[in-house]
Amino acid sequence: MKKLINDVDDLLAESLAGFAAAHADIVRLGPERHFVARRERKPGKVALISGGGSGHEPLHVGFVGHGMLDAACPGQVFTSPTPDQMLAAAQAVDGGAGVLFIVKNYSGDMMNFQMAAEMLEQDNATVIVNDDVAVENSTYTTGRRGVAGTLVVEKVVGAAAERGESLAALKALGDAVNKATASMGVALTSCTVPAAGSPTFQIGDHEMELGVGIHGEPGRRRVKLGSADEIAAELTGAILNDLSLRPGAEVLLFVNGFGGTPLLEQYLMVHAAHQVLAGAGVKVVRHLTGSYVTSLEMAGCSITVSALAPEQFALWDAPVHTAALRWGM
Amino acid sequence: MKKLINDVDDLLAESLAGFAAAHADIVRLGPERHFVARRERKPGKVALISGGGSGHEPLHVGFVGHGMLDAACPGQVFTSPTPDQMLAAAQAVDGGAGVLFIVKNYSGDMMNFQMAAEMLEQDNATVIVNDDVAVENSTYTTGRRGVAGTLVVEKVVGAAAERGESLAALKALGDAVNKATASMGVALTSCTVPAAGSPTFQIGDHEMELGVGIHGEPGRRRVKLGSADEIAAELTGAILNDLSLRPGAEVLLFVNGFGGTPLLEQYLMVHAAHQVLAGAGVKVVRHLTGSYVTSLEMAGCSITVSALAPEQFALWDAPVHTAALRWGM
Repeated sequence: MKKLINDVDDLLAESLAGFAAAHADIVRLGPERHFVARRERKPGKVALISGGGSGHEPLHVGFVGHGMLDAACPGQVFTSPTPDQMLAAAQAVDGGAGVLFIVKNYSGDMMNFQMAAEMLEQDNATVIVNDDVAVENSTYTTGRRGVAGTLVVEKVVGAAAERGESLAALKALGDAVNKATASMGVALTSCTVPAAGSPTFQIGDHEMELGVGIHGEPGRRRVKLGSADEIAAELTGAILNDLSLRPGAEVLLFVNGFGGTPLLEQYLMVHAAHQVLAGAGVKVVRHLTGSYVTSLEMAGCSITVSALAPEQFALWDAPVHTAALRWGM
Repeated sequence: MKKLINDVDDLLAESLAGFAAAHADIVRLGPERHFVARRERKPGKVALISGGGSGHEPLHVGFVGHGMLDAACPGQVFTSPTPDQMLAAAQAVDGGAGVLFIVKNYSGDMMNFQMAAEMLEQDNATVIVNDDVAVENSTYTTGRRGVAGTLVVEKVVGAAAERGESLAALKALGDAVNKATASMGVALTSCTVPAAGSPTFQIGDHEMELGVGIHGEPGRRRVKLGSADEIAAELTGAILNDLSLRPGAEVLLFVNGFGGTPLLEQYLMVHAAHQVLAGAGVKVVRHLTGSYVTSLEMAGCSITVSALAPEQFALWDAPVHTAALRWGM
């Protein structure tokens, strides 16, 4: 295992300390590192809280700030945060208008966020993200997995929360954006969880895992490494099939690197996905490209298509100021 | 070689097509893909042009836009662009106030930018970036290499150009920022140039290359993989030694991932570098963290310290709107 670390047990604490120092204008680190919270609280606003295992950075801590999350609870690498963390975060960022949890659909996260929701004294609701069309049920999941589409849900709902919308409206919006969003990924190499010290899975020099999960979970099938065009056709095809888009539909195309794939290749995948979408008569009206929802240093990428409604595109465009996404301010 | 590509010969063209599509609001692709240019021209402004081999993305194409570059000329992977490219770019983005080339100190780039400068009909000047303190002379370089500090030069000079400063003033500013900026990197793995198909260098499972260049060039020494704290001490120590900073000095700390190193580790390096700088009485007043000046999928990072003057920090803070750096707008 080759990583820039000291003691494996200190990795998360030291990384969060660096993150908090680098972005002290936007975030603060909560007591016992239970959460990363937005520095500027906004009274009367629904508090948006997400979280999950670390190792997917910038998700979620990099999305804390104006126009997106109020707090993120980082678990150990690929391990759910605890209910204590969500409770501490909720207390810290409560604006008096309730708490909305945004949770990726993994069994551990679901259980712990649900426990927190039951213990919470504030009004609360939960948006479950399950945008991964690759497989039903998986290593850590009952139902579909939540992957890169989580970013889209957090951005759109975050903008609406910033405008002062109610808990019920935000819950409905989050569910709608999740439903309009579909993703699928491919892995060329495995990642190595620091505490494990060896690769999560073995994969041949000429193989790829189609439909891989963001923890290296198995996907649809292990096949010979294909061309970028073939991969884009498979991923985007599965997504189009899931979303049942009509010709003329307008979408956000989000090509997401898993950590070990250079931007040069990610942009090539943008080009390849464009051609598939154009062939289906689907019009890309917004783009996001980069390594935003990662699996440590895994090579590969995912494609996310989000068929947002016009008012949802406006929320996507609204100002945001976080460590990893920033525009309009 | 496991990469998301079609034909190796089409990699750059397809990637640039994806880049131009994804950022059509900011950039346009020049004829024959000679350059990426800022969409909005600004008359009366000195034109800032950079470029170099591809494979370092987002450098340079990701830094084209308001407040930074007017154009970037992408060569093939790790290969200098040709003088034709710089000339075409200069003609396209000329604002009537001259052209400033920002060139990383590699022999091929230096020769080709110099040829372009000699053929150019506009007034022009060149800022040479050579921030890498690791070694004097290297595989592709006479003198010190230009690495991640190039971003700092492009950002600060770009902001000054946006404010309408003269060619002579910008040339002096670029030279001053380069002089105030020092970097050093470490590689844990090699990258693979697509056209070569095999890793650029071999490195053992427990080794690292201290002082590596951004094309995988040899550094100061090949040693046993150290802890993050040891690496930060070595890199930051060499930088401090070069810059001769006094206690109380205020700096920008830029921790740059080389492509294959997750943000989790990059932020841990921020924490580690902070401790070294604090030990030397140096105060970090600005941060940048991320994979901005990369070597394809190489694992490792570089540390850059830039001891900017107060008015240069103000230029760093000025609004920028490019694919990869965006704030204040």
